Amino acid sequence: MTTSGAPAPVITLTTDFGLADPFVGIMKGIILGISPNASIVDVTHEVQPFAIEQGAFLIATSFRYFPAQSIHVVVVDPGVGTARRPILVEAHGHWFVGPDNGVLARVYREPPATVREITAQEFFLPGLSRTFHGRDIFAPVAAHLAAGVPPTSFGDPIEDYLKPGTFGPQRTSKRHWSGTVQHVDRYGNLITDYLISDFEEVRTRPFEIILGPYRVQRLAGTFADGDPGELMVVAGSTGYLEVVANQASATKITGCGLGSPADLALY
Amino acid sequence: MTTSGAPAPVITLTTDFGLADPFVGIMKGIILGISPNASIVDVTHEVQPFAIEQGAFLIATSFRYFPAQSIHVVVVDPGVGTARRPILVEAHGHWFVGPDNGVLARVYREPPATVREITAQEFFLPGLSRTFHGRDIFAPVAAHLAAGVPPTSFGDPIEDYLKPGTFGPQRTSKRHWSGTVQHVDRYGNLITDYLISDFEEVRTRPFEIILGPYRVQRLAGTFADGDPGELMVVAGSTGYLEVVANQASATKITGCGLGSPADLALY
Amino acid sequence: MTTSGAPAPVITLTTDFGLADPFVGIMKGIILGISPNASIVDVTHEVQPFAIEQGAFLIATSFRYFPAQSIHVVVVDPGVGTARRPILVEAHGHWFVGPDNGVLARVYREPPATVREITAQEFFLPGLSRTFHGRDIFAPVAAHLAAGVPPTSFGDPIEDYLKPGTFGPQRTSKRHWSGTVQHVDRYGNLITDYLISDFEEVRTRPFEIILGPYRVQRLAGTFADGDPGELMVVAGSTGYLEVVANQASATKITGCGLGSPADLALY
Repeated sequence: MTTSGAPAPVITLTTDFGLADPFVGIMKGIILGISPNASIVDVTHEVQPFAIEQGAFLIATSFRYFPAQSIHVVVVDPGVGTARRPILVEAHGHWFVGPDNGVLARVYREPPATVREITAQEFFLPGLSRTFHGRDIFAPVAAHLAAGVPPTSFGDPIEDYLKPGTFGPQRTSKRHWSGTVQHVDRYGNLITDYLISDFEEVRTRPFEIILGPYRVQRLAGTFADGDPGELMVVAGSTGYLEVVANQASATKITGCGLGSPADLALY
Repeated sequence: MTTSGAPAPVITLTTDFGLADPFVGIMKGIILGISPNASIVDVTHEVQPFAIEQGAFLIATSFRYFPAQSIHVVVVDPGVGTARRPILVEAHGHWFVGPDNGVLARVYREPPATVREITAQEFFLPGLSRTFHGRDIFAPVAAHLAAGVPPTSFGDPIEDYLKPGTFGPQRTSKRHWSGTVQHVDRYGNLITDYLISDFEEVRTRPFEIILGPYRVQRLAGTFADGDPGELMVVAGSTGYLEVVANQASATKITGCGLGSPADLALY
Repeated sequence: MTTSGAPAPVITLTTDFGLADPFVGIMKGIILGISPNASIVDVTHEVQPFAIEQGAFLIATSFRYFPAQSIHVVVVDPGVGTARRPILVEAHGHWFVGPDNGVLARVYREPPATVREITAQEFFLPGLSRTFHGRDIFAPVAAHLAAGVPPTSFGDPIEDYLKPGTFGPQRTSKRHWSGTVQHVDRYGNLITDYLISDFEEVRTRPFEIILGPYRVQRLAGTFADGDPGELMVVAGSTGYLEVVANQASATKITGCGLGSPADLALY
């Protein structure tokens, strides 16, 4: 990927490491030592610690905005140092590197995808630690891939990678679905797992999203619709329905947060 | 701007998006897809949500430290998705992209400045959302500008852009001014809107800055002057007077914060 | 360092500035104006305000992961604007720029190291402030060094730079040492100053690390060992012993934090 004149390869980082510690900076140092021309972009480092599902949701809704052939390093890894495998995924014209614990499951669930177990230790940092595989495995593998090492060199394809049974809302009756808040953004907007393209009917039919005692029935075009503080549903920029409030925090108003049930009724 | 051998164009980002969500990373992905050689720098993403005046202050006091012809994307945008226009501003030898809601008013208030309404939708992301114009309009426009699209291609100059009536402190009597805290930094320093170059007399005459019940009368050269915890005024690095405390937080001591009145008396 | 074809020079930033203010972005703007091809990496900006020892620990445990000849700017500087000197350090094949207040003491304590007082004001930003030397001195000096100015041009070597008496744990009896928590990471892990290579015996002999009323006696291989919430010691990725808890926060469990005593007994 680094043939003369080609654009610099893009490597993105998505972790639960936060930015207060040197973890992320150290990963970038390792990358630049191997692939000096890489453009490194932080997607987010504020995945809730150990929240694999949230990490899976955030990378799956973000990677498409990066150039084709970008390499996405995703490290939410409560089992670091145990037997869980490192994997390299090729899907949707992008590359993904991370642990085989489901954090990449949303990107490989739609075929075609190739999942390789990363076994080629010559690409690891010497003196592998048992607590920081972001530095010792995932960053150097991503950087070697960016520097032109062929994907086949990292390990063989596998089929028994982790396949969580279900994603997204479950249908509980003809007109009801049981879903979940997948992410809460800075503004307190509650991003659900109702993919807009699967639920276009909310645009034309009465519906409600049920968050604890709150029933939100209004579909708004943008945040500025509605009265200040009014709860509304918007077709969010992620492609999912969001429960929001005009210039206020839906999470504060409702008390709901990451993982809260968010049921949908469509009438 | 990307002729062979020219330095990489610099694009800066100033938003109220925070860093916990993928918003900023996604904007960078869009930019790198259009202008792969851009150097992207975060000015801050911690403008208080919807605090247009604070955003205006922070970009106006920061942009001069970047190379000439830098492109500054500024998104504090409570009215996203409404009729407020996107604008492209040329001023002080820099470029600015953002909503026409006053967040760029401090950079175009001193002529000469050219303000264009951005109307050329061919530079927008396809499938424009109503909630994330940072991704769909401002990032791609900045990137196309960095990649060499001439400014005239984005839209025509306008004259009726938002012109807030006043900036900075108002004179209330011969020796008194009524001002405001524009920003509180990490150390708890209170940055006022008293431009040092307009109030050089504080260096030679008795004065006081009045923050609620506190009257701060000492001009110090640096933070280390004064007793620990003593309130002092310094000629801050932003070019504005700041109320600070030696190794302590002036905002905690005084209870004043963003938007608090900060009157000045000059004797 | 910028001869044709050479990789872009790497400049890292370690400060107590946080990311909410434009301080860090402004330093990057200054650097790119002088050394447009520099790759700038944040190590951390969340050193506790004015915590010189923590800053010294974090850069000393991070710099080795960056390419040789990287330039590390380290600004934790409660005495900014006073007589403390700016210094340029060459050690371990890397460069370091910062104030002479001990924040670089862990990198120059092992010879050979060359410490220069930075006196060449032609490399400073014009109109030196007394409150933001990160912008006015350290960033431009690092950038000029990255752009090829020889180190000798910045000032002469000095010998009387600050040499803190001791680092790391003190031996208090044949089998006891008195140490300190040097850093608390995002997960609440307590990083001590017991260098693993100096205390390999913990792998083979009974020991305990004493944190207030807690005595931690188990050496674990990784976080996932032990029961949820159990306090354990791991040989951390920094090279130091860490007190951790499986999927829980050791700092919350013990109430210990940055600077807390952490004694070691080895039986």
